Amino acid sequence: MRLGILISGRGSNMEAIANSIAQKRLDAEIAIVISNRASAPGIITARERGFPVRIMPSAGLEREEYDKQLIDELMTHEVDLVCLAGFMRLLSANFVRAFPNRVMNVHPSLLPAFPGLDAQRQALEYGVKITGCTVHLVDEFLDSGPIVIQRAVPVLDADTVDSLSARILLQEHGIYSEAIQIMVEKRAVLEGRRVFIQELD
Amino acid sequence: MRLGILISGRGSNMEAIANSIAQKRLDAEIAIVISNRASAPGIITARERGFPVRIMPSAGLEREEYDKQLIDELMTHEVDLVCLAGFMRLLSANFVRAFPNRVMNVHPSLLPAFPGLDAQRQALEYGVKITGCTVHLVDEFLDSGPIVIQRAVPVLDADTVDSLSARILLQEHGIYSEAIQIMVEKRAVLEGRRVFIQELD
Repeated sequence: MRLGILISGRGSNMEAIANSIAQKRLDAEIAIVISNRASAPGIITARERGFPVRIMPSAGLEREEYDKQLIDELMTHEVDLVCLAGFMRLLSANFVRAFPNRVMNVHPSLLPAFPGLDAQRQALEYGVKITGCTVHLVDEFLDSGPIVIQRAVPVLDADTVDSLSARILLQEHGIYSEAIQIMVEKRAVLEGRRVFIQELD
Repeated sequence: MRLGILISGRGSNMEAIANSIAQKRLDAEIAIVISNRASAPGIITARERGFPVRIMPSAGLEREEYDKQLIDELMTHEVDLVCLAGFMRLLSANFVRAFPNRVMNVHPSLLPAFPGLDAQRQALEYGVKITGCTVHLVDEFLDSGPIVIQRAVPVLDADTVDSLSARILLQEHGIYSEAIQIMVEKRAVLEGRRVFIQELD
């Protein structure tokens, strides 16, 4: 399974995926890392680890045109599965159709609670006692596709946005690789919005 | 701490509260059980257990007038804390003001996800992998007040609405008494929407 990883920032989930591959917990390879921001620190990490990297700024491009270039780049690298890892752009319906049920994202809340930016801050300010993270298939809407794995994370009275985010991120790293491996093994069965995970024989 | 329990149906959370009191896990007494439905099976249970019961149908009454009668009845029984237990009515701002931070509810989801009716079905149809239950203080909006306790419950691939509801209900029974006991011990400190639970000395 050839992965295309899309980043906009640190790419810590990209690193977690790379570590899982190195540790043979994930049977895949990183075919290309694409950043839409030239300043994303994750670009350096990706190069240090020897992954092919493309910087594709979106400035001045319509969404459809940009997404078409993205699709071309991913196709060129024969990507089977697109993994968003802190990629701060909504993808068009055309992009999603180009990789049907083959685009994944990880989000730092128990969706559908707290979609969008600053999910951890939203959770703290709402005052929930339990939040978490979600790996889901991506559709053209914000943080709305079918859910593959979720993990709960307790909110502590002493939590700040930083401490809570760090605890959630640790869980993101675990479940993202786990969910990708489920896709590698073709064990996810979609029925409506529900994703059933078949056991290995 | 004198409890007023408001029911519309089975009153299973009322029973759980009564059990917790009987087992000395909850230091309170049930001063009055009020049902807005004459056919609520919980009325029979309440009578069998010897609790004072009032049936107060709301038919033909404006919300403010009905809530005024409710307040009068609860005041007459010197109720300190109002516990909604499957009470299927929204309460007015006047009611909430009559018992400031003294009205509680339990809801079968991890709020703010899946407010309103059929929360368990909503969760299943959305396809979440984790849901749960929430005890919260009640304001005049639907399932929206500050959260005291939440508990996560996994959604299993084989779950139906009934099996999931039963597993959540078991957790509701536990956390509702736990949350009421926190109020009895005056350990809940409200800051904005967040409820901090102080440790016992």
